[in-house]
Amino acid sequence: MPELRKDPVIGRWVIIATERARRPGVFLHSQKNTFEDGPCLFCDNQDREIFSIRQYSGAPWRVRVVESGTPLLSTNNKFSRRGHGLYDVVNDYGAHEVVIETPEHIANMADLSQEQIRMVFETYAVRYNELEKNTNFQYVIAYKNYGWVAGSRRIGHSRSQIIATSVNPFSAKEKLDGAKKYYNYRERCLYCDMIQQELEAKVRIVAESEHFVAMTPFAPRFVFEIWILPKQHNCDFAKGVVGHEHDLAGLMKIVLTKLKVGLEDPAYNYVIHSAPFRHGEKGTKWKTLAQDYHWHIEVLPRLTRVAGFEKGSGFYISSIPPESVAEFLREVKV
Amino acid sequence: MPELRKDPVIGRWVIIATERARRPGVFLHSQKNTFEDGPCLFCDNQDREIFSIRQYSGAPWRVRVVESGTPLLSTNNKFSRRGHGLYDVVNDYGAHEVVIETPEHIANMADLSQEQIRMVFETYAVRYNELEKNTNFQYVIAYKNYGWVAGSRRIGHSRSQIIATSVNPFSAKEKLDGAKKYYNYRERCLYCDMIQQELEAKVRIVAESEHFVAMTPFAPRFVFEIWILPKQHNCDFAKGVVGHEHDLAGLMKIVLTKLKVGLEDPAYNYVIHSAPFRHGEKGTKWKTLAQDYHWHIEVLPRLTRVAGFEKGSGFYISSIPPESVAEFLREVKV
Repeated sequence: MPELRKDPVIGRWVIIATERARRPGVFLHSQKNTFEDGPCLFCDNQDREIFSIRQYSGAPWRVRVVESGTPLLSTNNKFSRRGHGLYDVVNDYGAHEVVIETPEHIANMADLSQEQIRMVFETYAVRYNELEKNTNFQYVIAYKNYGWVAGSRRIGHSRSQIIATSVNPFSAKEKLDGAKKYYNYRERCLYCDMIQQELEAKVRIVAESEHFVAMTPFAPRFVFEIWILPKQHNCDFAKGVVGHEHDLAGLMKIVLTKLKVGLEDPAYNYVIHSAPFRHGEKGTKWKTLAQDYHWHIEVLPRLTRVAGFEKGSGFYISSIPPESVAEFLREVKV
Repeated sequence: MPELRKDPVIGRWVIIATERARRPGVFLHSQKNTFEDGPCLFCDNQDREIFSIRQYSGAPWRVRVVESGTPLLSTNNKFSRRGHGLYDVVNDYGAHEVVIETPEHIANMADLSQEQIRMVFETYAVRYNELEKNTNFQYVIAYKNYGWVAGSRRIGHSRSQIIATSVNPFSAKEKLDGAKKYYNYRERCLYCDMIQQELEAKVRIVAESEHFVAMTPFAPRFVFEIWILPKQHNCDFAKGVVGHEHDLAGLMKIVLTKLKVGLEDPAYNYVIHSAPFRHGEKGTKWKTLAQDYHWHIEVLPRLTRVAGFEKGSGFYISSIPPESVAEFLREVKV
């Protein structure tokens, strides 16, 4: 029976439109990727290097972080907040980096080796820790746009981006507020409870590794949305991932390969959600944040359009239940 | 100078990326509309009629409301809420109607007469009032998808949709909460204050009528986003629009024609934001809601893609300042 489901974290209602239910195969070719030929900006990249992983000093880079050529934010301006009548303004202040995930001209992270993906996660963690040293930064987000509809230019070289901001992004605030409400009420982490319920129910599990679980959310925003969560509680990506980068890389490779094989190479985004920086805060606030939030990765395939009703109402419509998506993906052999 | 701006209602930060600033002309043809040939489902519509406007009984319809052929929600199920571990579920319960805005095969509302658009707004108001009688409904939203990227099928016949829901949509909650915080602090309506500030500053005004103002928001989510607000305070669309339908229709026609001419017929959505139903509530809660919320219409042209950073962070990036958009649109002759 069709139903409305509420996201347990932020309280967003989602319509699971089983009346319109479609089989996963319907989404094949819906948003086919294309990549331009021509010189690649990332194969023989000479941009100013911020960080790299090399086998030894002087060896060729294996993962490379450079400043974005078209930065959204930079530290060139002075950090300042000001008002403007009833409006609030902050100067452009932040960091915008590009992580070139491989020296080879490979488009999809799914096609990198587990070892190569491990180095990408290691790189993210290094950059999170480094950017945390700037106390004007409140938040860092690492994300990937793969394919044109996901916001990537048409160059087929696997890469992702890191942005540091001086204000707390809206989604982070929503998630933190939702998780905190639950914690205040139950004195338990909402995500930990959710993982336990999901591992028992098994209906939305896509794949599992020693330390992580990949599942479709109960009330997804997007068809084929997948969350990857660490089984062990930690609010902070850079601290929580330490020692488990290889395990996470293996699960990520499985998830991305299942999407690639099962849906014939769809466009997708992924986003790492971590707690905001707590810059030397001690005591209750620090402790609460550490206990009530739980870092995770959202993988968002871009298979459907978002229409006016969804834009306007914040309601999302899922034309296939997440249980069917999980079942479909479990059966895709990789 | 590039800057971050905060939406005064819900607190979402937007990056105004003036470093990447582009001229409005760049958006021409970015999302060109196409319409299929073939029989139109709406020209000679025989679906079960819910409401229509006719010159006299038995005359041909001029605006017609029918049940959606592919309803997202319906009243066929019993209304019920239930839990599922830590999750919340509500049965599919609601209404989903299609407003056929003209008997003629015209695609864009911009090309309807002011009188025809007036009848569309009158129709919305009739349906809002009628749907309010069902006390299981908490919220009604009227919206339009024009063009494929805006979520419309490829049939070129001007129409819009009305959805009634048994739960409060997420965006409504966000906006209501934001407006209430401001009201509690200042004892004034946030939207009324904003309209006053904008009418004085003039930099973001697109067009104005006797009773309404069309402006670009200070911190837009989308390039070319336009808000149409009644100058007179009212939280409720159906009550507030009474007597001003013709004036609103004239301003809407100007705004949509400016978009059509200036951007060469882009895809767009519009959404009417009204307060939730208050089903016989009296006293403080009713009075507060009536005073702190302000109904309005959001017009959302669909010119750019939304990338991973925006999906993940809730930050939106505007590659052209709303002041430039307003200036550009003011100069488009209609």
